[in-house]
Amino acid sequence: MLRPEENERITRIGPGTPAGELFRRYWQPAGLSAELPEPDCPPIRVRLLGEDLVAFRATDGSVGLVDAFCPHRRAPLFFGRNEECGLRCVYHGWKFDTSGNCVDMPSEPPDSLFKTKVKVTAYPTFEAGDLIWAYMGPAELMPPRPDFEWMRAPRTHRILSKTFEDANYLQGLEGGLDTSHSSFAHNERLGDRNWIRNRDGAPRLDVERTDYGYSYVSTRDVGEDGLYVRVYHYAMPAQQMRGSVTSLMGGRSEVPKLDGHIWVPIDDEQTYVYNWACSYSSNDPISPEYAEDWESQNGRGVNDLVPGTLKLKKTRANDYLIDRERQKTKTFTGIVGINTQDFALQEGMGRIADRSLEHLGTSDKAIIATRQLLLEAVDAVAKGEKPRGIDPATYRTIRPYDDYVPKDGNWREQFADELVAKW
Amino acid sequence: MLRPEENERITRIGPGTPAGELFRRYWQPAGLSAELPEPDCPPIRVRLLGEDLVAFRATDGSVGLVDAFCPHRRAPLFFGRNEECGLRCVYHGWKFDTSGNCVDMPSEPPDSLFKTKVKVTAYPTFEAGDLIWAYMGPAELMPPRPDFEWMRAPRTHRILSKTFEDANYLQGLEGGLDTSHSSFAHNERLGDRNWIRNRDGAPRLDVERTDYGYSYVSTRDVGEDGLYVRVYHYAMPAQQMRGSVTSLMGGRSEVPKLDGHIWVPIDDEQTYVYNWACSYSSNDPISPEYAEDWESQNGRGVNDLVPGTLKLKKTRANDYLIDRERQKTKTFTGIVGINTQDFALQEGMGRIADRSLEHLGTSDKAIIATRQLLLEAVDAVAKGEKPRGIDPATYRTIRPYDDYVPKDGNWREQFADELVAKW
Amino acid sequence: MLRPEENERITRIGPGTPAGELFRRYWQPAGLSAELPEPDCPPIRVRLLGEDLVAFRATDGSVGLVDAFCPHRRAPLFFGRNEECGLRCVYHGWKFDTSGNCVDMPSEPPDSLFKTKVKVTAYPTFEAGDLIWAYMGPAELMPPRPDFEWMRAPRTHRILSKTFEDANYLQGLEGGLDTSHSSFAHNERLGDRNWIRNRDGAPRLDVERTDYGYSYVSTRDVGEDGLYVRVYHYAMPAQQMRGSVTSLMGGRSEVPKLDGHIWVPIDDEQTYVYNWACSYSSNDPISPEYAEDWESQNGRGVNDLVPGTLKLKKTRANDYLIDRERQKTKTFTGIVGINTQDFALQEGMGRIADRSLEHLGTSDKAIIATRQLLLEAVDAVAKGEKPRGIDPATYRTIRPYDDYVPKDGNWREQFADELVAKW
Repeated sequence: MLRPEENERITRIGPGTPAGELFRRYWQPAGLSAELPEPDCPPIRVRLLGEDLVAFRATDGSVGLVDAFCPHRRAPLFFGRNEECGLRCVYHGWKFDTSGNCVDMPSEPPDSLFKTKVKVTAYPTFEAGDLIWAYMGPAELMPPRPDFEWMRAPRTHRILSKTFEDANYLQGLEGGLDTSHSSFAHNERLGDRNWIRNRDGAPRLDVERTDYGYSYVSTRDVGEDGLYVRVYHYAMPAQQMRGSVTSLMGGRSEVPKLDGHIWVPIDDEQTYVYNWACSYSSNDPISPEYAEDWESQNGRGVNDLVPGTLKLKKTRANDYLIDRERQKTKTFTGIVGINTQDFALQEGMGRIADRSLEHLGTSDKAIIATRQLLLEAVDAVAKGEKPRGIDPATYRTIRPYDDYVPKDGNWREQFADELVAKW
Repeated sequence: MLRPEENERITRIGPGTPAGELFRRYWQPAGLSAELPEPDCPPIRVRLLGEDLVAFRATDGSVGLVDAFCPHRRAPLFFGRNEECGLRCVYHGWKFDTSGNCVDMPSEPPDSLFKTKVKVTAYPTFEAGDLIWAYMGPAELMPPRPDFEWMRAPRTHRILSKTFEDANYLQGLEGGLDTSHSSFAHNERLGDRNWIRNRDGAPRLDVERTDYGYSYVSTRDVGEDGLYVRVYHYAMPAQQMRGSVTSLMGGRSEVPKLDGHIWVPIDDEQTYVYNWACSYSSNDPISPEYAEDWESQNGRGVNDLVPGTLKLKKTRANDYLIDRERQKTKTFTGIVGINTQDFALQEGMGRIADRSLEHLGTSDKAIIATRQLLLEAVDAVAKGEKPRGIDPATYRTIRPYDDYVPKDGNWREQFADELVAKW
Repeated sequence: MLRPEENERITRIGPGTPAGELFRRYWQPAGLSAELPEPDCPPIRVRLLGEDLVAFRATDGSVGLVDAFCPHRRAPLFFGRNEECGLRCVYHGWKFDTSGNCVDMPSEPPDSLFKTKVKVTAYPTFEAGDLIWAYMGPAELMPPRPDFEWMRAPRTHRILSKTFEDANYLQGLEGGLDTSHSSFAHNERLGDRNWIRNRDGAPRLDVERTDYGYSYVSTRDVGEDGLYVRVYHYAMPAQQMRGSVTSLMGGRSEVPKLDGHIWVPIDDEQTYVYNWACSYSSNDPISPEYAEDWESQNGRGVNDLVPGTLKLKKTRANDYLIDRERQKTKTFTGIVGINTQDFALQEGMGRIADRSLEHLGTSDKAIIATRQLLLEAVDAVAKGEKPRGIDPATYRTIRPYDDYVPKDGNWREQFADELVAKW
């Protein structure tokens, strides 16, 4: 549990809040590159860390990310004209480049110098891994660009998607860093002893702090198959990585891969989840059919989303279409879609969970470590220090993994080569 | 009128509020027994006195009423599995019995004692009169179970329903204890002198305090038919009972009965109304056809409700489908449905009426008495005293009644036998 | 820009606020006369300056404007019966005349004097120019009735409509007093040099304070056609008038006219816009076809409104159906409907624009003058002084105008006769 003030401290991310300052020290995903498909295409609304912004792809292909409101009279720039290297407000024609400079001000006399004095707030961006990344912190503290292994995998070996979650980011992040629940919430095979998560719902957790956050290992005693050991990484402030190389029915996965999520706060009560996966090696390309199937299994396939949005059709308002008969006989939750199950639980806690009422057990070691790291990082930033995981050197070569290990085996030795990035 | 602080004092019923404490000294209806139709059926959400709860019927038929959130990590128990005498959270499999004990904790090591230290908030329940009753107050002050006459009538002689009202409970209760408005709001026979309420819209009220609240009598001068006298009871904190034995067109009703409502706060701004009726005697069974017709007349028949809910189709948002032509020519309000007329007026006051702006007349004597009793009871509870009506002995034998009385008659003598419970 | 407290001071118009007091010194449009089409027709809800009211047309044709809640027990008077010169509450039959007197109280004994002691709040009204006007200020300060020229034009020469706007009134008013944006936001002819607004987007503004507010003149250098000079009036607190006599393609308009808007606060965050136009002279009647075409061009024709409401189908929620292809190739905004373009920009600023973040230029002279006048008037009222424009004598004979003027011409001389009311 957290004290109420601690809970506030790490869940509120608006401008000027402690965690808001922390999140503003990292590059954050502001959207999929595909959301701005070509130069001079329509701008999009971006709400990020509680700030209303507009993103546009300029004529040269670069992405501008500016205040949603024109600095002149606060007209909405979303309706702006994306013209010749700049976004032009349709109220009085003021035009801004991707750096926020006012490059034309046709409502003022031609000889006016006023335009040299006006800027619109603009945040630096770059693109990598099919994402638009933005930095919203102090210019002098801008860190190097993120460089996670999955960003380097070729598109033929990668899956990337984005989903809306109607809750604070921390509920998502904690779910992602909680291995134990997968034996319950994600149990699609009630009573099937072949599914190894059915054999041990109380995995042993070992958490090890690192320069980027922590690495943690869950160990399940799966009887005649020995131990099932899964290595996760928590890259601060809000990314999870896990191995999905091994099949939970025994042997290797059809497409061995690494996967994870980044939870990006829209504001205190809403989140975008970026879902990534990349194959284990160049021998395992990811076909579009497999990718769509994977997204569907997770409950975010094309038929799972409200058309034209990133929102699930299954929501709090329709009880995620829980099927009580299915719950009695086939799956633990009766809810279809792996991440839909997560959303039902995470969104069901309320928009910001009241952690002061919790009772944490040994299965919550990773959760506890996450909170400690966040609280420490918030304090560090407040003191002018550098938080963990800002420097890509700390995580560039890491990789998660999972496999079976003999009961008397040593996973560290067995996994040693596997835990190093191959892309 | 009430001073604003008095109004707050008796309308706010959340945990820790003065009226919240008062309401928590009584058993409260938490739902219809029929909402949990069989052992191990799906749980239901219950919001009661501002608290979010989940009710489930266990394998042995008993009803559990527990906190809506798992004490582990606050996952929503509504999605829980209702299994072998307990509700199991689908996040990590923790299972709770109807008393709130944690009876299984599969995410922790088998030898862990942690489960003996964890409880979920659980309120005592029992069933009677086709209702689930719950007690949400201090264990040491738990009163005997309610025992109203209508609860004892056989199902063949009883009607029971539940309706959602989008306003504070007190607006409903005050409407129920206000006889005068029935000459106006419920006038379905504009100008028809045969309808005796048309003959006297200013009934004389006599209120008499009792150990359970009060009894009050309204007397209408109905000309050649003498006096029409109706006896009501107010059973604290929020039940009304009235006689409906006599036809308002003269003679006895087709099905002579007693009826009433209990208003149960969902929270400060929403209410469930439990509508009950029981026949006057065993000679007058209530057929299903009559019951459905009665519900329809009151505006809560099957066709009046949004399917799958307890909410009226007619709402504030659609002006209760008021028909202005009907209002001009046939009925006083132009709104169809007796209790729909009440809802239009009560919900139309705003979610919590501002009683500081009222102007009360002699027709409001019962309203004034209700408020005084509530204010006194709130004070009594605050002082550790026992409020009225907690002990069923105070109301077990009461019964309301109504009939014509000669102008020189004495209703007390005439009604003496009728005012005693027969069931 | 305004300091945040100044912004609050002139945007908040509820009872007791500084600008609320200012607005309450003027007669305000409370609705279209057509909304109450005949004596004893159904009452309508009116929310005006943050107060919930009900308007009804009595048997004698006069209009009552009373508190939305009955003074007895706060039942909603909207459901009231509009009877024989009074509105009767359907809860207990209390009846009020248009002056707010209780003229019948049938729930009290016939000899009761209580009804002489009860009044419902009632605001004086009168009708002129097809509008219902209401005065909500102190009785002793009630000013003479408004008398704008357009109100005197015959119905055959006039257009009047009413539209809902989902933003604070000041965003609308400032848009109406901003000539520069019409070269951009309302540019329906991208790149067409014949359209004279394309020739000069930076008009020179001259603002002249008057007893009713100000008159302002915008001058555009339109090359070979000389100067295009347009005279506007700002009549306090929230009316704009402008000349539309001259065609923007050269020559006279098809139907030369004067037009304008009055912005009437529903509350702090919502506004009714009254749109009026009257022809320049009796030689130019306005046909119903022209009127409907005009309304359509402005985006408020019959097909533009949600049926049965005064709300546009195009809203913030559907991005005003912006057509990005149209925006690239044909019109500046890609939004269809002149006033829809205004709404997209004004509503898009948020319900109350944050003026502390603005950067105003020389094109904003009129905006700045508006705010100064409002701030001064708010102060004047606070000091017990009379604000500008309360007396119709100050504006009875004014008229706006627009025309081409030679570069060496003098618009004052050229327009002298035109700036005097003809109706």
